[in-house]
Parts: sequence; C-alpha cells; structure tokens
Amino acid sequence: MHFVVFVNGLLLLGMGGLMGLTGLAYSGTRGVFLEAALLSAFVGGLLCIASSARRGHLHRLHSFVLTSSAWVTAAAAGALPLWLWHMTATDAFFEAMSGITTTGSTVMIGLDTTEPGILIWRAILQWLGGIGFIVVGIALLPIMRVGGMQLFRTESSEHGEKEFASAARFALATIWVYAGLTVSCTLVYTFGGMTGFEAIVHAMTTVSTGGYSTSDASFGHFQSGYLQWSGTLFMLAGALPFSWYIRLLHRRRVRSEQVQWLVSMLVVVILILTAWHVLANGSPVLETLRLVAFNVVSVVTTTGYATTDYTTWEPFVTVAFLSLTAVGGCTGSTAGGAKMMRWIICVRSFASEIKRIRFPSGIVTVKYDGKPIDWGVQSGVMTFLVLYCSTIFWIAMALDFYGLDLSTAISGALTAVANVGPGIGDIIGPAGNFSSLPDGAKWVLSFGMYAGRLEILTVYVLLFPKFWGAMA
Amino acid sequence: MHFVVFVNGLLLLGMGGLMGLTGLAYSGTRGVFLEAALLSAFVGGLLCIASSARRGHLHRLHSFVLTSSAWVTAAAAGALPLWLWHMTATDAFFEAMSGITTTGSTVMIGLDTTEPGILIWRAILQWLGGIGFIVVGIALLPIMRVGGMQLFRTESSEHGEKEFASAARFALATIWVYAGLTVSCTLVYTFGGMTGFEAIVHAMTTVSTGGYSTSDASFGHFQSGYLQWSGTLFMLAGALPFSWYIRLLHRRRVRSEQVQWLVSMLVVVILILTAWHVLANGSPVLETLRLVAFNVVSVVTTTGYATTDYTTWEPFVTVAFLSLTAVGGCTGSTAGGAKMMRWIICVRSFASEIKRIRFPSGIVTVKYDGKPIDWGVQSGVMTFLVLYCSTIFWIAMALDFYGLDLSTAISGALTAVANVGPGIGDIIGPAGNFSSLPDGAKWVLSFGMYAGRLEILTVYVLLFPKFWGAMA
Ligand SMILES: [K+]
Ligand SMILES: [K+]
Repeated sequence: MHFVVFVNGLLLLGMGGLMGLTGLAYSGTRGVFLEAALLSAFVGGLLCIASSARRGHLHRLHSFVLTSSAWVTAAAAGALPLWLWHMTATDAFFEAMSGITTTGSTVMIGLDTTEPGILIWRAILQWLGGIGFIVVGIALLPIMRVGGMQLFRTESSEHGEKEFASAARFALATIWVYAGLTVSCTLVYTFGGMTGFEAIVHAMTTVSTGGYSTSDASFGHFQSGYLQWSGTLFMLAGALPFSWYIRLLHRRRVRSEQVQWLVSMLVVVILILTAWHVLANGSPVLETLRLVAFNVVSVVTTTGYATTDYTTWEPFVTVAFLSLTAVGGCTGSTAGGAKMMRWIICVRSFASEIKRIRFPSGIVTVKYDGKPIDWGVQSGVMTFLVLYCSTIFWIAMALDFYGLDLSTAISGALTAVANVGPGIGDIIGPAGNFSSLPDGAKWVLSFGMYAGRLEILTVYVLLFPKFWGAMA
Repeated sequence: MHFVVFVNGLLLLGMGGLMGLTGLAYSGTRGVFLEAALLSAFVGGLLCIASSARRGHLHRLHSFVLTSSAWVTAAAAGALPLWLWHMTATDAFFEAMSGITTTGSTVMIGLDTTEPGILIWRAILQWLGGIGFIVVGIALLPIMRVGGMQLFRTESSEHGEKEFASAARFALATIWVYAGLTVSCTLVYTFGGMTGFEAIVHAMTTVSTGGYSTSDASFGHFQSGYLQWSGTLFMLAGALPFSWYIRLLHRRRVRSEQVQWLVSMLVVVILILTAWHVLANGSPVLETLRLVAFNVVSVVTTTGYATTDYTTWEPFVTVAFLSLTAVGGCTGSTAGGAKMMRWIICVRSFASEIKRIRFPSGIVTVKYDGKPIDWGVQSGVMTFLVLYCSTIFWIAMALDFYGLDLSTAISGALTAVANVGPGIGDIIGPAGNFSSLPDGAKWVLSFGMYAGRLEILTVYVLLFPKFWGAMA
C-alpha cells in the first residue's frame, strides 16, 4: 500500500505545480493559486517522504485502491483553489469532482465574467481527468477485470518487467496522441475566431469530453457553423479508443467494432432527429443538421456542451436525448457512459438468448471484434449494466429524498453517473445550472460522478471487507 | 400449429360459457353478456372445428405462439362485453388486457355504482389470468427457457407421455390450491363484513394479485383492520410459488429461497417505512403498521390495491414505493414484476463478479436453492433484467411521446410492465385513474402489460423471422 500513498503524493505534488503555474500566469487569482499550490505540494511531499522508505510489492488488488484514492485526492486538490477563491466547500468539491471526472456539471454562474485563472483551472482538471482515465482504462481496468474489461487484457499485461516497459511506452504514446489532438483542436478553434484563451480552454474540455466552457451559454456562445462542426469532430475524436489511434499510426489492423457502431449509431440518430425537427417545425435543413449533430455528438460522447436548449423542442426529442445520455463512447477513451463495447455485447447476449431458445442443446458463443469471448467477460458486462442501472436508480432515489422532482432526480442521476453534464428540466437542463440544488444533493451527485467515472465496481468493491482481507 | 388454433378456440368457448353464466346471473347486463357469449362461442367453435381435423405435432417452439396468442385472444374476448356495454374499443381492450394480465389499472370511474355483472366480469378476467399464468409459469416457461426459467425444468419435463400425465396431475393440483385459496379468502372476507358479492370479487382479485375492486376507493373502501390484515395475508399467498404449496401438502422438503427472501424483504421494508412515517409524522404505530404493511405487500406482490394515497406521504416513501414496484413476487405464482428468483441470482452474480476480481483464476459458481446453476440460467436472468429495464424505458419514451409528463410516463411504464396497477402522480397514482390518458398511450400500456406478463422474451422472440423459420 506504500506505493498507493506514494502515487497520491506525486499527484498532489504535480497538481501543486500546475496550481503554481496557473497562479503565475493569471494575476487576478495569483494569491489563491499560490497558496493552494503550497498547501498541495506540502501535503504531497509529506506523503511521498512517508511512503518512499519501502516501496513494497504492488498487489493486483491495490489497483482498486490506487484508482479510487487518486480520483478523490485529485478532486480534493482541485477544489482547494476554488474554495480559497470564494466558493463553499461543497460547491468547490462538486465543481472539482465534476471536472476531474470530466462530467462538466457546474454550480458556477456568470462564467463570462469569471477570473481567467479559475476558468483555466477548471479546464486543466478536465484535461487531467481525461488523460488519467484513458491510461487507467488501457492499463489498469483490463487487469482489474471490471465490467468485462478483461476483454482488452493482453496476454502479457499481468506479469513481468518487460511488459511494464511496453505498457509505459504505450502510455507515453497515448499521452502524445492526447496532446496532439488538444493542440490541433486549439489551432482549429483559434482559426475559427475564438480568442487564444477561449481556444485553449475549449480544446482541453473538448478532447477530454468534459464540457466546461468559458460562457454560461456553453458552446452556444460561438454562433459559428465552422466552430460548431469543428467541435462536433473533436468531441467525437475524444470518444474513440486511444489504442485505435496508436494502431492507426502504426498502420496496424484498425478494425474496431466500437468505432463502427458508434459512428453508425450517430449517423442514424442525427439523420432521424434532423428529419423529425425539420418536418415538425419547418426549420432550415442545414442549420438543423448542424444543431442536431453537435448536440447529439455532445451527449453521446458525454461531453455535455450545448448550443441550444433542445429540451424546448418536441417531447420526442427530449426523450431521445435522455436515452442517448446512457450510451456513452468507446472504452479506452475519455468518454463516460456505459460504453459501446458493453452495448454490443449486451445486444449479442440478447441474440444468443434467442438462439439458445431455438437450439436448447447447441453451443452458443458471443463474439466481439471477430473473436469469441469467454463467459466471464459476458457475465461482467451484464452485471455491470444491471449495476449501472441500479446505481442510477438509487442515486435518483437519494436526490428525490432531497426534494428534487422525479424528472430532475432521474436525469440528474443519469447525467452524473454517465459523466455527461446537463440533465433535463428547468433546473439542471442544458440551459440550467446545478447551483440551486441543496448541499446534500450535490454530495450525492459528486458520488455518482465518481462511481460512474471509475466504472462502478472499482468503488463498490472497496465496500466489501473480504476484499481488504484478500489484499492484506 | 393446428393445436395452437385449437387451444385458442377452446379458450373462446370457455370464456363464452363464463359470459353466458354472468349474463344469466346478473339481469342488469344480461343482453350484453349473452350477445358476447354467443359471439365468443361462435368464433371459438369455428376455430375448434377448423383445426381439429389434424392435430399435428406440438413443437417446443409452438409454446411461444400458444402463450402469446392465448393472452391476446383472452383479452379480446374479455373486452367484448365491456365494448358491447358502452365502453370505447380502446378502453374495453385496455380494461380487459389489464384484467387478464392481472395488472389492475382501470379506466373506469364510478365503480361503486357500476352494474354487478361488469364488476364480476373484471374479477373473473383477473382470476382466469392468474391461474393461467401459474400454469404457464410451472409447465411452459421452464421448457421455453425464458429469462432463466429453465432453472425450474425437471429432468422429465421435455419428453414422453408419462411426464405429460404427471404434468397434468400437477396442473390439476395447482388449480385445486388456487380454488382453495379463493374460497378461503371469500369466507374470511365475508366474516369481516363484506357482502357476499364484494367478498367474491375481492377474493378473486386478491388471490390472483390482480387488484380490481368494487369501489373507486379500492380496498380503502373497507375501513376495517381485520379486513386489511386479511387482504395483506391473501395477497402474499397469491405471490408465493404454487409448487411450494403442493410440496407443502405432500410434506416434502419445503425450503424455498424465493419465499425466504420475499418474506424477509417485506418484514424489513415494512418495519423501516413504518418507523419512518411514525417518527416523521407522529402517527399512531399500529395503524401505521397496518397501512404500511397492506400497501407494501400490495405493491411488492403486484396486486395494486390501495388503502391510502401513500404518494402524499414523505417523498422518501413515494420513491420507496416506486422502487418496490419492480421487485415482484415469486416465479410460479400469480405475481408480476421481475420476480425474486431473478433478484437472488442477480445479487449472487454481483457477488461472483467481486469474487472473480479477487481470484481471477478461480472457478466461481452461483448457487440457487443450494444447487449450482449453469451459466445459461445466469445469462438468461441477466439478459432478462437488462431487457426488462429497456422495455420499461422505451415504453416510458413512447408514453412521453403522447405528451405524458416524465413522472407519469416512467411510473406508468413500470406499473404496466410489472403488472402492478397504480403509478405515481396525480393522474395514475393510487388515487388516480387511467381514463384520461390519450388512446395511443392506452395501447402502449396494454402492450407493456402484455409483454410484462409473458416475461418479455416470449413476445419479443416472435419478432424474429428466424424463429418462425425454425418452427416450420
Ligand atoms: K462531460
Ligand atoms: K396487479
């Protein structure tokens, strides 16, 4: 466990450094950030020193504690400058957790006139959360066997020094791709008329599918077709598997069922909703296509930007958006949600049930990316989906308990657990804000974002005493 | 397939006979019922004659067509007198489908002054639907392998004449138990002060966990502690596995995890909600206990009687009731919902996932009633639960499309698919009524009750052309 403490210490040191840089760069909030930087670095340093004496062996089960603790540590550190600035502890923690989980639900009003230091810090949190989750999704979750993720285990991922080295190379390549996408996105946004500051903030929150913006009007602040189409493209880029990019760069076999399904689904849904809205309202075709494409991609990739309050459209559209909230992007990307991989396996499980009914004595296999999957993966995926639904349900119940109406409670639980950002309704809809919610509801939602980001089981597993026993 | 047509013909003949008896017994609606009886018997007779020439072989897959068609036929025949009486076709079909699926959602207002012939007919529909579902659940679903029901397959249930004979004996025993419970319930209700008519109607709709009443105030019309406690007991009796009663009568081993879990869960939930309501409102303990016990048992057994509008209690209580709506009773009973058996296997699948995480190379088995279950059962159960949730979701979407608010849409979909009866909200809550819904919504809900009653897959499977190919 010393290793876990050490990594958390390093994390605090690193975030302290970033706070320091933010403080130096933006004079308006300099004091706040420098104070937070010192505090964070001090605690981080202490943790590193305390744990560095003996590193010990990294048990496979330590990955659960490592991942779970890292996101809490990062949220707490991320909240520090916001709290010192002037937010309440609850609001600061909610905002930071929403950032580091790339959810993007905000309790802040008046973003257009907020200190740039604060705005860039929110973007940095999302950018860090995004790359952190990609690395965890590629390197740790397959070993942890969470929700069927062992499907992506390479034969070598569990043993040996050589494989750690190759994993490190892979992680480095991922970071390069991520950084490359962010820089490209910044350039494209600047070219479209954003200021340099706006471009950097939005690039960081686009590629991480986070969704924090510099304006209360979210991406809708930029009434440019070019910018909105670019945003659509880069949100999608953030939701594709990063290992797929690396294979693409190495000119390896690039077939990925997740990518195929995600893109096909987006095309179909966008065409249907566009046709619907055009026929129902007689709105101009191309503008509607742009609006629908942007907002559908935003919800499905779990970015959560909005360019229009689509909940004021036909009821059908509202419900369509609500149902898209649970879908999510691809595994090994920055996106949240249940992930395409799991829906593919779910649909095939259903097909295999039908087949089993037709041929009771036959052997039915479920395939993924052309290879048959073992039933541990299938069981992991189905358990995940049931657990996912029940988590959304009990979080909705808890929110209802704090007096939220059913519509707000359900869409709030959904948007938090799926790390999307906006919900449905007057309060937390695309045109709304989470600031007016009671404190208790904010803590419940923070937990929802946290559990959702770490694929539920990573967190739930820690509640079992037997788990701690097995690790000792 | 001739056999399927023949059984539907017999069903129409039998229901025609019951309509005839109802017509003879109640003079106020005599013309209506005698006309419906002739129509039903005429069509039934034609079907029997047309199909009796060659009986053919009953393919295992024919069970799906048999079950699915029987419930539509029964609903259509059941709607006939209601339609001839004065209801619209939509309302009559909704009311009859709600009856034959033992859901109990009603579009009728002014029950207290409604013709007794109509009231008894609604009760007869529920009583028939209840015993029909028990027989299907014990005899057919295990062979059909729907949603993990193959767990209850006996080694002999798929082959041979002798086994058909033993199945017939078993079905007969079940009918005796059902009739015995109904008669006992009638006597107990009469003893508590109901008129003979009220007692018969309520006994038929209690034991079938249907929930139709003779009063708009539902069971709340009877302000008697004795009657309400009796109702609680007999609703529970209807939701226990009928094979368990038969084993009990034969003094065989009577351990059943479903019964244990159901009763334990009820005790815990009732105690918590009673304590909550007493502490929050200072209401009298014993009266609260009675109210809570009745309404919790009513929702969990999917009966759907109400003695109070619990949605006017604390928000926590409303949400607790909403979440109880999905639980359901035991398999092989009249109850709807997802059934305890599936929740037990779901919880154990979750536990096995945790175990798999701890011991990745170990073999993890899931047990039920002390015996390890094969993974086809587990996969069937998990697929069922995911399918169940998605069915509720798309039905809620469809209802939303007809302009219902989200709360009404979601609780309406839930209550229909789980065959409970009342939803949440002003319109369809325990104190409300389904009559004001648009016709489209009534058809959607009718489909939801139908799919829910037949355990979803029985109906969905018919949508696959390959299924029809395999049967030919
Ligand atoms: K987001
Ligand atoms: K019912």
